[in-house]
Amino acid sequence: MPKKPQLLQATVVAQTHVFKVEQLDLRFSNGVEVQYERLIGSRDGAVLMIPMMDEQTVLLVREYAAGVADYQLMLPKGRIERDEPPLDAANREMMEEIGYGAHKLTHLTTLTQAPSYQTHTTHIILAEQLYPQKEQGDEPEPLEVVPWRLDNLPALFASGEFNEARSVAAIYMARERMLAAQGVL
Amino acid sequence: MPKKPQLLQATVVAQTHVFKVEQLDLRFSNGVEVQYERLIGSRDGAVLMIPMMDEQTVLLVREYAAGVADYQLMLPKGRIERDEPPLDAANREMMEEIGYGAHKLTHLTTLTQAPSYQTHTTHIILAEQLYPQKEQGDEPEPLEVVPWRLDNLPALFASGEFNEARSVAAIYMARERMLAAQGVL
Repeated sequence: MPKKPQLLQATVVAQTHVFKVEQLDLRFSNGVEVQYERLIGSRDGAVLMIPMMDEQTVLLVREYAAGVADYQLMLPKGRIERDEPPLDAANREMMEEIGYGAHKLTHLTTLTQAPSYQTHTTHIILAEQLYPQKEQGDEPEPLEVVPWRLDNLPALFASGEFNEARSVAAIYMARERMLAAQGVL
Repeated sequence: MPKKPQLLQATVVAQTHVFKVEQLDLRFSNGVEVQYERLIGSRDGAVLMIPMMDEQTVLLVREYAAGVADYQLMLPKGRIERDEPPLDAANREMMEEIGYGAHKLTHLTTLTQAPSYQTHTTHIILAEQLYPQKEQGDEPEPLEVVPWRLDNLPALFASGEFNEARSVAAIYMARERMLAAQGVL
């Protein structure tokens, strides 16, 4: 593994209600000095859930995504509150977004988003043994819940609505587990 | 499909060398008004390449990721220059990062990163029929090129070094094509 660059200086150069930007002065092990900027995410990161309605069906949400100014199909997700255990955050966000809790929650992996310039991390949580329970979230309108069968992913990708990288990675992981359970992989 | 919210006002609230933050005032179709912030990405987005060394082997790079302050294994990627066609950007970035061009470049899909609060999009490009050609990029140090077999993804995920959501999504897509070509899926 290469030797990490030395951090010469870190300076906050912008701070808004949501975003914080840090400027980094780095010296690489070969002596080259560079200046980067990175976005500081929330300390505890986010959770993204794969809610399994049954062994072959996940629950997606159709939600307005202000960044791209359009409705998108995604797996439910949300920010972890300060000091909240990730699995608790997962269950809370599911109750708020899709109206289900899960008796069984499994941390599959933790993904980064754009590690070159963001600190942000997202825990991917498999949610099984669902039970109906609705809690009030901070969504401006109710989210549409869309069940999707894991043996029908090509149609999901072809829909043009399911493009979020973390959701795509996570749904492949869920399909992988299904195929393994079926003895295909 | 739900009716999109109305954009009441958009205001730039921060601008650094790299990042631009916009505040959005939105009115949803049910009358609820909210204020969001979003990060404005580069106009033409980014490219992420899946360089196929042969039908079963992709080339990864080990690169210092300043956002998470560690070396990471990722698929090669880069920003599209102004008015550069995405496939040209893909070939240029591969020559700079891994020292190969590709005779065959295929746009597989376009992923978003965090569409709720970023405009950023990344084109996923399958690169086949590679040929050695090295061009000088803006990397502060040469990137280590790491070949990886698509039939050995569990070991890659277990390495703890391969976590970037777009790279994970893209490598599953490449494996999917391999399995389809082998008649497994």
